[in-house]
Amino acid sequence: MYTARLPEGPGHQAAPAQTAMRVKAHPFTSNLVLRPLDALDRWCLSRLASTLRGSPVRLRLWNGANIALGDATPVATVVVHDRVTLVRLLTQTALGFGEAYATGRLTVQGDLVRMLEGVNRALAGRPFQGARQSRSASRAAARHNVHVHYDLGNDFYRLWLDEAMVYTCAYFDGPEVSLEDAQRAKLDYVCRKLRLQPGEHVIEAGCGWGALALHMAREYGVTVRAYNISEEQLRYARERAEREGLGDRVTFIDEDYRSIEGSCDAFVSIGMIEHVGRAQYAALGSVMNRVLDPAHGRGLLHFIGRNVPMPFNPWITRYIFPDAYAPTLDDVLRDILEPSGFSVVDVENLRLHYARTLQQWLERFEDHAETIARMFEPEFVRMWRLYLASAQACFLTGDLQLFQVTFARPADNTRPWTRESLYAHQLHGSL
Amino acid sequence: MYTARLPEGPGHQAAPAQTAMRVKAHPFTSNLVLRPLDALDRWCLSRLASTLRGSPVRLRLWNGANIALGDATPVATVVVHDRVTLVRLLTQTALGFGEAYATGRLTVQGDLVRMLEGVNRALAGRPFQGARQSRSASRAAARHNVHVHYDLGNDFYRLWLDEAMVYTCAYFDGPEVSLEDAQRAKLDYVCRKLRLQPGEHVIEAGCGWGALALHMAREYGVTVRAYNISEEQLRYARERAEREGLGDRVTFIDEDYRSIEGSCDAFVSIGMIEHVGRAQYAALGSVMNRVLDPAHGRGLLHFIGRNVPMPFNPWITRYIFPDAYAPTLDDVLRDILEPSGFSVVDVENLRLHYARTLQQWLERFEDHAETIARMFEPEFVRMWRLYLASAQACFLTGDLQLFQVTFARPADNTRPWTRESLYAHQLHGSL
Repeated sequence: MYTARLPEGPGHQAAPAQTAMRVKAHPFTSNLVLRPLDALDRWCLSRLASTLRGSPVRLRLWNGANIALGDATPVATVVVHDRVTLVRLLTQTALGFGEAYATGRLTVQGDLVRMLEGVNRALAGRPFQGARQSRSASRAAARHNVHVHYDLGNDFYRLWLDEAMVYTCAYFDGPEVSLEDAQRAKLDYVCRKLRLQPGEHVIEAGCGWGALALHMAREYGVTVRAYNISEEQLRYARERAEREGLGDRVTFIDEDYRSIEGSCDAFVSIGMIEHVGRAQYAALGSVMNRVLDPAHGRGLLHFIGRNVPMPFNPWITRYIFPDAYAPTLDDVLRDILEPSGFSVVDVENLRLHYARTLQQWLERFEDHAETIARMFEPEFVRMWRLYLASAQACFLTGDLQLFQVTFARPADNTRPWTRESLYAHQLHGSL
Repeated sequence: MYTARLPEGPGHQAAPAQTAMRVKAHPFTSNLVLRPLDALDRWCLSRLASTLRGSPVRLRLWNGANIALGDATPVATVVVHDRVTLVRLLTQTALGFGEAYATGRLTVQGDLVRMLEGVNRALAGRPFQGARQSRSASRAAARHNVHVHYDLGNDFYRLWLDEAMVYTCAYFDGPEVSLEDAQRAKLDYVCRKLRLQPGEHVIEAGCGWGALALHMAREYGVTVRAYNISEEQLRYARERAEREGLGDRVTFIDEDYRSIEGSCDAFVSIGMIEHVGRAQYAALGSVMNRVLDPAHGRGLLHFIGRNVPMPFNPWITRYIFPDAYAPTLDDVLRDILEPSGFSVVDVENLRLHYARTLQQWLERFEDHAETIARMFEPEFVRMWRLYLASAQACFLTGDLQLFQVTFARPADNTRPWTRESLYAHQLHGSL
C-alpha cells in the first residue's frame, strides 16, 4: 500500500506535548484536545469534525493541537498549518483541501489513499447534492482541456505509465499481474469484446498514445482510423506506427470526435466520454450511428462512471480535468445509445481494476517524484499525487465506477451464444 | 423452424385463378392483382401495402385476389376473410390482426414466425411513436393481471414448459441444448452470478412455480423466501418443496413484492419487472434497498426489455399480459437501482436465448394443440400460438431484449477479478 510522503510546507513542526483543554461537549469531538484557540477556530473545528465524523483521520493544527474526528483508528494525520486553511476546509472542503495540499499549507502524515478512502466511507450515505452535468465543452475548449492534461509531455507520462503508454484502466486477471501485462490484457479483452475479424475497419475516438489502435492492427489484422486532439500523443503514436511498420493500416487523425467521417465495422472509445460532456452525447451517438455498418456494426465504450449523478469534485475539474464529467450508466444509454436504437449486449464494471491500475501508477509516480519535481515544480508533484491517490480511493470505495459497454445493431444475430469465448482465449499475441 | 398450421376459419377457400386488374400504379403495389373490389377495398389495400412494404407476405382476400407487398419472396400468405377485417387491419393494425387471427377471420398459410419477423424487419427504422409507460397496476389490479395469465392451470403449462416448469428465458450453451438442460443451466447461471454461499438468505420476488427458489436451496444451501401472487403457482411450488424435503429452507409467500419484509444477502427477480409498471419501479427499488444487507447485499434482475422506449403492442396487453411493459435498460437503472445507489456490476443481453426458448415452447405447444383446444377452445389456441410466435419473432429481430442485470452495494469489494468463474464451472448439480 502506498504511503504518502510528507511534503515540505510552511509552518510544519513536530507536535508538542498536548495540554488538556476540551471544547464544549460534542458527540463527535469528545477527544478534542486543544491548546489556546480562539472562538472561530473552535467553531471551525467543531463543524469540520461534524462533517467528517467517523473518518479515520487526526487533525493537527499550527499550534500543535491534535483532534481526532471519530472512533476509527486514524490512518493519517492532516496537519493544517494556518488558520486561513482551516477556514477554507470548512467553506470549500474539496477545493480547499486540494489547493492547500498542493501549496503545502496542509500536509498529510500517514497513508494518503487510506485516509481518502476513510473520508469517502464516512461521507457515504449522507444526502448528496447530486446533479447531472448540463454544459459541455466547445471544440476549442475541448482542445484546450485535452492540451492542458495530455500534452504535459510524453517524457512525463513515460516515467510512470506502462511501456505501451496506456493511460486508462487496465485489466488484471488477478492481483499479482503486472501493470504491463494488465494493460496488454485490457487491449486484447477489448478486441475480443468487439469480435474483430481480419480486414475489418475500426474507428477509434480518443486514441491516447495509440496503443489500442496498434494492437488491433497488429494482432487482429484490422485497419484503424484513430482520432485524437492531443498533439503530443499523436506525434508519439505516428512515430510508433511507422517504427512498427503499421503506418499503412493505422491512421492517426488530428480531429475532434465530431469530425469523424467514413464508415466502419467497429467503433471503440476508451476513456474519452469523460471529456465529451453530456450535452454532446447525442452528437457522439449520432456520429456512431452514421459511421457504423447498418447491419453488423458494433462498438465498445469504456468510461469512468457513477452510480448516481454527481459532478467531479471542484478541485479535480479546476486543476486536473477541466470540464470532466463521469456519467451514470443510464446517462450513456439514454443519451448516446438509445436515440440510434443501439442494443446493449454486455456491460461490465471494472472499478477495482482501476483502483489497482492507479495504485501501480502512483507507486511508479512516487519512484520518480524527484525527477518530476525537477521537470515541473514541487507543487505539481503534490497536485498529481493527490489526484492519483484520490482517484484510487474513489474506485476503492465505489464513488467511481469503470464501465465497459458493448453494443450492437439491434437485428445483428451473429453473436456467440455465451460470453465464454472472452475467457477461453489465451492472451492474443506474444507476451 | 416452426410452421404455423392453418386453423379453420369462416370464409376460407382455395385461391381461385387470378384475373388481372391492377389498381393505380403505386411503387409498393405494382404487383397488386385484384378481382373486382370496390374503391374502399382498393384504398385499404394500397394503404396497407404502403405500411407493410418490403414484408415477405402475400395477402389473399375473401374473393381470392392475391397481393404481394414487396420484392421479398413471401414466406406466408395472410388470408383476409372479410372486408371488416381488412379495414380493421388498417385502422388498428396489431390489435386488428391479433383479434382476427384468434377468431379465424384471418388465417396465415406458411411460416407464422418468419412472417412476423419479416414484418418487424420491414417496419424497422420507420419513425416510431415511442413512449415510456406512465401507469402502473394497483395491488388489486396486479393480482388480477397475474391471475388471468398465470392461473390458467398448471396442467396447461405442464404440457409445453420444461419439467421444472420455468416460464422465463432459458440459457443455451449452444444451439443443440435441450430446453430442460437450458432451463437448468439458466437457474444455475443466475446462482453463479449471485455468488450464493451456503447459509445465506435469499429473497425472490415473483417466483413462478418455484424452480429457482428450490434450485438455490437444493444446490447452494441457501434459505429462500419466495414471493408470488399466483395461487396456482404457489400451490404447486409448496407441494414440490415438501416433496423434495426443502420445506424448511424455502418459504413460498402469497404476497405482492410491495409487502416483502425481512432482510437478505441476495435479491433476485426473474421475469417480474415486466408486470410491475414503471410508476412502481421506485417502490421496488426501495424494497430491495430495505431488505438487502447494507454491506454485501447484491441482486439480479432478469427482464424483457427494449432498446428504445415503446409500449407492448395493444393486442398483447389486452389479451396476453394486461398492463405489461418491457422497460429500457436505462428505465430500470434510473428508476430502480440509482435511487438507492446500487452499483451495476454486470449486464448481459440474452435476446437470442429467449427466441430459442420460445421456439421450443411453441413446438411443444403445437404438439399439444388439440389437447389445449379441448381444455379451452380453438380461439385460445390461436391466440397463444400468435403470442408465442410473435414474441419469438420480436426477440429474433431485436424488437425485444432480455436483460440480466447484476448489481451490488457500492462499496462491496469482494467480487472476483474477472467473470471467468461464471464459465469455468460445470453445471452445478446432477444432470
